[in-house]
Amino acid sequence: MPYGYNGKILHVNLTAGTLTVEEPPESFYRKYLGGQGTGLYYILQGMPAGVDPLGPENMLAITLSVVTGAAVSGQSRVMINAKSPLTGAIGDSQAGGFWPAEAKFAGFDAFIIRGRATKPVYLWVHDGQAELRDAAHLWSKVTGEAEAAIREELGDSKIQVLQIGPAGEKLVRYACLLNMCNRANGRTGMGAVMGSKNLKAIAVRGKKKPDIANPQALSAIARWGARNFPESDIYGMGLHGTAEVLSYQQKSGGLPTRNWASGVFEGYETIDGTTMSETILKARDTCYACVVRCKRVVEVTEGPFQVAPHYGGPEYETLSTFGSYCGVSDLAAIARANQICNMYGVDTISAGATIAWAMDCFERGIITAEDTGGIELRFGNAAAMVKMTEMIARREGFGDLLAEGMVQAARRLGPEAETLVTAVKGNPLPAHMPQVKRSLALIYAVNPYGADHQSHEHDPSYGGYPERMAELGLLDPQPDDVLNAEKVRYALYTQQLYNLLNTLGLCQFVWGPAWQLYGPSQLVDMVRAVTGWNVSLWELMKAGERSLNMMRAFNDREGFTSAEDKLPPKLFQPLIGGPSDGIAVTEEEMAAALPLYYAMCGWDAEGRPTRGKLAELGLAWVADELGLD
Amino acid sequence: MPYGYNGKILHVNLTAGTLTVEEPPESFYRKYLGGQGTGLYYILQGMPAGVDPLGPENMLAITLSVVTGAAVSGQSRVMINAKSPLTGAIGDSQAGGFWPAEAKFAGFDAFIIRGRATKPVYLWVHDGQAELRDAAHLWSKVTGEAEAAIREELGDSKIQVLQIGPAGEKLVRYACLLNMCNRANGRTGMGAVMGSKNLKAIAVRGKKKPDIANPQALSAIARWGARNFPESDIYGMGLHGTAEVLSYQQKSGGLPTRNWASGVFEGYETIDGTTMSETILKARDTCYACVVRCKRVVEVTEGPFQVAPHYGGPEYETLSTFGSYCGVSDLAAIARANQICNMYGVDTISAGATIAWAMDCFERGIITAEDTGGIELRFGNAAAMVKMTEMIARREGFGDLLAEGMVQAARRLGPEAETLVTAVKGNPLPAHMPQVKRSLALIYAVNPYGADHQSHEHDPSYGGYPERMAELGLLDPQPDDVLNAEKVRYALYTQQLYNLLNTLGLCQFVWGPAWQLYGPSQLVDMVRAVTGWNVSLWELMKAGERSLNMMRAFNDREGFTSAEDKLPPKLFQPLIGGPSDGIAVTEEEMAAALPLYYAMCGWDAEGRPTRGKLAELGLAWVADELGLD
Repeated sequence: MPYGYNGKILHVNLTAGTLTVEEPPESFYRKYLGGQGTGLYYILQGMPAGVDPLGPENMLAITLSVVTGAAVSGQSRVMINAKSPLTGAIGDSQAGGFWPAEAKFAGFDAFIIRGRATKPVYLWVHDGQAELRDAAHLWSKVTGEAEAAIREELGDSKIQVLQIGPAGEKLVRYACLLNMCNRANGRTGMGAVMGSKNLKAIAVRGKKKPDIANPQALSAIARWGARNFPESDIYGMGLHGTAEVLSYQQKSGGLPTRNWASGVFEGYETIDGTTMSETILKARDTCYACVVRCKRVVEVTEGPFQVAPHYGGPEYETLSTFGSYCGVSDLAAIARANQICNMYGVDTISAGATIAWAMDCFERGIITAEDTGGIELRFGNAAAMVKMTEMIARREGFGDLLAEGMVQAARRLGPEAETLVTAVKGNPLPAHMPQVKRSLALIYAVNPYGADHQSHEHDPSYGGYPERMAELGLLDPQPDDVLNAEKVRYALYTQQLYNLLNTLGLCQFVWGPAWQLYGPSQLVDMVRAVTGWNVSLWELMKAGERSLNMMRAFNDREGFTSAEDKLPPKLFQPLIGGPSDGIAVTEEEMAAALPLYYAMCGWDAEGRPTRGKLAELGLAWVADELGLD
Repeated sequence: MPYGYNGKILHVNLTAGTLTVEEPPESFYRKYLGGQGTGLYYILQGMPAGVDPLGPENMLAITLSVVTGAAVSGQSRVMINAKSPLTGAIGDSQAGGFWPAEAKFAGFDAFIIRGRATKPVYLWVHDGQAELRDAAHLWSKVTGEAEAAIREELGDSKIQVLQIGPAGEKLVRYACLLNMCNRANGRTGMGAVMGSKNLKAIAVRGKKKPDIANPQALSAIARWGARNFPESDIYGMGLHGTAEVLSYQQKSGGLPTRNWASGVFEGYETIDGTTMSETILKARDTCYACVVRCKRVVEVTEGPFQVAPHYGGPEYETLSTFGSYCGVSDLAAIARANQICNMYGVDTISAGATIAWAMDCFERGIITAEDTGGIELRFGNAAAMVKMTEMIARREGFGDLLAEGMVQAARRLGPEAETLVTAVKGNPLPAHMPQVKRSLALIYAVNPYGADHQSHEHDPSYGGYPERMAELGLLDPQPDDVLNAEKVRYALYTQQLYNLLNTLGLCQFVWGPAWQLYGPSQLVDMVRAVTGWNVSLWELMKAGERSLNMMRAFNDREGFTSAEDKLPPKLFQPLIGGPSDGIAVTEEEMAAALPLYYAMCGWDAEGRPTRGKLAELGLAWVADELGLD
């Protein structure tokens, strides 16, 4: 081995106010790599079953990986796991930005947070040192103000801040964390967990670049990326952001519209990536060392919906959830809703989808203007959408109910409202439609943290990148609209790959099979160059599978069974209009695909990892932990 | 893809006397690769369950791989599969030599043989052409004579001949095939299957070197091997042959002695690799393009046991089965028995082990000199051992019973004889002891073709090559004498790797994790260089797992269950003497390891592949074939 990987894990006990540094052996880093793998390792060992997600017993794992901070595109990401207050299952979310690399430069690989502080605190980590500091003056501040205050107080404008906003403080169940005020660890309510712990922020600053085992090899990979980027499929996304995909979704009938009643939205052209580039776009932004620059910076200085550049700009999913989901075609309104979410720390997907569901309820009379405090919460009402976003973020009025989550709110409103839900395990569906890309039906159902669009490959890259799929052993491309055995296999293998990406903390666009710049063998080369370990794709894919199994094992311990691997009724109703008119997922295909998927995973008929599968992945200790036979 | 792999499969119907050429698409080659994968593909599709292994319905698949014939060490191997007349399960055996590369140069990737010729024939394959020719004049000839006659008749001294000897013609149930008269596809009776079909030989000659996608890359890998060979651990094996391991086995108490009563043999020094090098060794021989030259050529011109160089020399397993198994320390006698086997076409391991078992029966009075025709079949009687080898090969006298196989003979002799058996699924144990390398206990039990030493990594390389094991995701080395969950995992992963080697047709010494020259990543690089496919270790390991599952699926179809995954009683009795004195495999560890192994494999409690596992490997068609739920 060219060098021995070494790193530090910071254990934070907020109840006791103690900080402890652990330096695990190199074999630990090689096995768990970081991200989901490392987070779940500590969570499964350190946390009993059945705890209140918003109680002090919940653990919050904020993790980097063994390659975070290496000077190559798509590596600066932070992964967060905890028991989710939205789903009761494992929570999981990832974000890019400059915080992750800076946290590595500050000397740590992970922050494992337990307990609850008696009063608001924040964690200040710099140059291998860490301290808890009073955050009373930061509490209730929006992200931009809190960030400025921390930098001012510590006297360093280059400090990076990962923080919750007021929504996290108020335990909005889909509150998020933000770094740079615009990179969100959005999903599954990790911000509420952090808020429940009275932890406002983790501020980081450091100058120690990570050791690179083979700097020449890494540099060659980075240069290759820069050289090939202009000719790659990701180039357009660099130009127009993830919003580039919106027109494509519309064309295939896969743009969720009016709470998923339709796959086409007549107003799509005014909210797509090209329009954004031509109108409100002020700049492109990027993550540490990344050539792609897919992040949007937008500004709106006139009209009812004004937007400041500091809070970034909407991603595709945000454009769709606040836009087509709600029937809203006003780009400025969407950008404003996005800004509110980034100021207050709210997941845009969950917020937009929940408002769209509420609009559906409103249109049907399940809720009325009386409930909403006079707001006409109708499809297409941009002002109502923006207002409701703010009310959720502040837990004001009807927003307080929606802040509990779509499924929880529906339960209060009764059976008709429940039939309109678009969520799995309580996690609202992101803007990719199983009706037109059928593998999503399966993965939405089975994914441990609920419906998610970054946990397998659902873009039609199977045709577009057959050589890269072949490296995964997928030699037999299937049409998008089938869910046969080969498609289930494809979904599983790419899910394992995505879990690897979420373990190594790699961006799916740069390192994943879709839209990608680099292929799987370059991924292997990059990990080799950074760590000096002669890893193989076999070893790495098994690490991805390991993470997936640890998450399912967590859910098993919490009592989840196949009953929770269920799509909402809406997906079985035919879509209306456009190329996807009349199309629905069928109960029959799901009834066939689910047991096949479980069996492919080596899980039991209830979708629970078996001792055999866990042991095969080097996780016999998890089977012991769960008391499996 | 730099070039499209194309190849030809020759289908031979001996009943009809027809030859048909199939040219499968490139995706077929990439998925099944050759060897076990390709053989089982045709066997599972073309053959019903329950056929007589020696009847015309049995199929004989003689396969090369996509890398056979490329100019690099350790690639010239031929793999053979059919239903085994020795075990009733899938048969499998591999051999090196010059025949495999020459067969590739002659234009074919595989020979799939069905039916039975009405009279003896041989197959003549040259330059993309093939014909069946009369073999009446070759029948009953020993291999050296038949080879010479074929070369003479066809007028080309460079023709390579893969053939059976008289033992195959007489359906000795562990008859083998030989090429060069000294490279044996030894195990599981594939020679008897060929004999039952009245097919004497496949003679090949060709000049078309296979297309290499990236000749520079391949050449660099080959040069690296040549350069690093003198410093590698395989160098000693080049000098002294596989016999080099004999002293090591003795030292660790792992040299099976007197029908496995002991793990040490007092006469080991007179039969080890160094002694052979210093006494009877005449030359070193090699396989096509291989730098190792591990093959022995020996000569004995005086005394009772004379040996001609044309028939090669004994491997470690042959030295042990005819030597320590039988208590024989006469090197010339062992070399003579080896020559008889190579002349008549008999598996040396099965022959030696069966004779040792018969000696054990003789010593205990279960059989007597009356049964053996006056031969004092006692441990240490070298002349009796050589004589009995010849009697088996010719099916003469008591040899006719032993030619049926150890387990079949024991069944005739009664319960006491059965307790002395050293075989799994009827396949005699090769010379590697589960008592001192405990993973062998598991793999001997579960291997689809019975006890075998080339189907997982059992040498203590886990300690010696931790970096190469780490590439397989095996980061936690275990002692040799335990069979815990991590060891079961190690056994399974290396079994999958060996099944890959037996699918790609690669020599375990050059490309496997033990004694190896090249590591797993170089294996990937080599396959890429030859084929132009950007394969990963993930894709390749899955191909190995695919082959393993196809073999188990075959056995399932034949009615095999976990009841057949059983070690003989002898292994549970304590060994006597030396470092392994008192050591035995325990029923308890096997009872724990078996279900864990099945579960790790994704098989059911009876060790049968499930539809889920098969579908996960892209083998849903096999599940259909077997009628699985």
